[in-house]
Amino acid sequence: MNDFENYLFDASQTINKKLNDLLNLSYFCGRESPGLELMLEAMSYSVEGGGKRIRPFLTLEFCRMFGGNPVVALLPACAVEMVHTYSLIHDDLPCMDNDDMRRGKPSNHIKFGYANALLAGDALLTLAFEIISGDGNLTGEIKSDIIHELASAAGASGMVAGQVMDLMNEKKKADIETIGFTDRLKTGKMICAAGNIGCIIAGAGSKDLHNAHVYCENIGLAFQVVDDILDITSTKDVLGKPVGSDIENNKSTYVSLLGSDKSKIYAEELTENAVNAISGYKNSHTLIQLAHYLCNRIY
Amino acid sequence: MNDFENYLFDASQTINKKLNDLLNLSYFCGRESPGLELMLEAMSYSVEGGGKRIRPFLTLEFCRMFGGNPVVALLPACAVEMVHTYSLIHDDLPCMDNDDMRRGKPSNHIKFGYANALLAGDALLTLAFEIISGDGNLTGEIKSDIIHELASAAGASGMVAGQVMDLMNEKKKADIETIGFTDRLKTGKMICAAGNIGCIIAGAGSKDLHNAHVYCENIGLAFQVVDDILDITSTKDVLGKPVGSDIENNKSTYVSLLGSDKSKIYAEELTENAVNAISGYKNSHTLIQLAHYLCNRIY
Repeated sequence: MNDFENYLFDASQTINKKLNDLLNLSYFCGRESPGLELMLEAMSYSVEGGGKRIRPFLTLEFCRMFGGNPVVALLPACAVEMVHTYSLIHDDLPCMDNDDMRRGKPSNHIKFGYANALLAGDALLTLAFEIISGDGNLTGEIKSDIIHELASAAGASGMVAGQVMDLMNEKKKADIETIGFTDRLKTGKMICAAGNIGCIIAGAGSKDLHNAHVYCENIGLAFQVVDDILDITSTKDVLGKPVGSDIENNKSTYVSLLGSDKSKIYAEELTENAVNAISGYKNSHTLIQLAHYLCNRIY
Repeated sequence: MNDFENYLFDASQTINKKLNDLLNLSYFCGRESPGLELMLEAMSYSVEGGGKRIRPFLTLEFCRMFGGNPVVALLPACAVEMVHTYSLIHDDLPCMDNDDMRRGKPSNHIKFGYANALLAGDALLTLAFEIISGDGNLTGEIKSDIIHELASAAGASGMVAGQVMDLMNEKKKADIETIGFTDRLKTGKMICAAGNIGCIIAGAGSKDLHNAHVYCENIGLAFQVVDDILDITSTKDVLGKPVGSDIENNKSTYVSLLGSDKSKIYAEELTENAVNAISGYKNSHTLIQLAHYLCNRIY
């Protein structure tokens, strides 16, 4: 690992430790029940599933870049990751993408059953808001601003709309504009919220929020383009799930619409846009490295 | 209808009108998408399904009883109803109770399909937090207190735990303590939250919050006992869903464990407990009537 990868790994360890504390019976002291115990097991199973913790990392790093204390951003960062994990659990359910594997292990519903997986997703989404609203390090005003940002991004006009459109797109040959619109909602909104929440905690101004938004929107889209490329070029061991599923499902992707070479160029352009939006800031180094790191997965 | 029923009906109309405004494209101005449109249709379908709006009514009336302005409690009251509706949509799904009918019409997943119903539930839960956090009539401090109350009640240590235990209970002959514990979580927590949120908005003190909690916990449990009685004594037309489903599912209920007569006595005792907890307050008249009204459904 290079220096940046070490830094990202260290941050993910900090995030994992806090997530582990939050998904523990002791957090719910006095509210124990057999139902809670089973839910914590199921919730932890998927949260512990790994991933690079890119979203909470964005929260911490935008907070840091705009002069805030990233320690204060840690609970909201974990809440963002919980919302992301809920979306993965529900996305994998048989009525949605019906994926049996996630991050190299059986999906939540394979391990805990359909109903418990559904409820574990519901519980993670709900816990995210419980955690932020109960955060003793933030003012009520900041907590409700963060919650508004997160709920707007995750809900009917954001990620959920993107998931609905993703299902709609399966039934037709979607064009590149539709795919882009869908991805901006399905993955882009939550990535933007992750960054924005860091900005809000740091007390960033509207110009800074705008630049953060441009950065996040572009890396979000680049991330999706890279995922489509990896679906045809990677291996099951690296991805933790079967490759070639897009082709198998006859799904329109950047690769199927633009071809592999143009998709790579597109991912690089998006990454450049992201970098340009924040390169004027002192301390933007880490986030610039993140953008390149995410794009370089294709090589 | 008597005076109280008229009053309850009028309140439900006010709540319905506000819910309708919130589940409208114009609320999401600038964030339109085909996914949002479909979600609003599915969300509205279940929210409009009716019910007596007991939970939001509790929010408004506790706010009023403790000297607050119920108009200020209207958005949080609607958020409570959204969380309740999300729980019904997910509860009806094939992987949960697999109910095809709800409130006299096809369940959400029968009408919109499994995936869309799942997502409409997710979106309602999320919108509840978006609405409270975006409420311009409340301070940040009050908004986060309300959100904390709602999320704690709905999540892994509250309603979701109750749903998990309900599924566990199906597999065994549960005793009366287990049924009571399950119901306190599954329906009780949200009913308590509905009342507490009204108290918080009114700025009620800790003794008042305690009394409100005792009232809500008791009517919540009475409500469940009455539901079990109605499941054997009512008709499909009145309930809006098939009767006798508990017996058919071989489910332990208050009636199967205590018998019908003792269950009625138990419901009346609980109602008395509820009434006693608040009868010392000036203006408790409406909430006392509500407790009797809910219990009297058995006659």
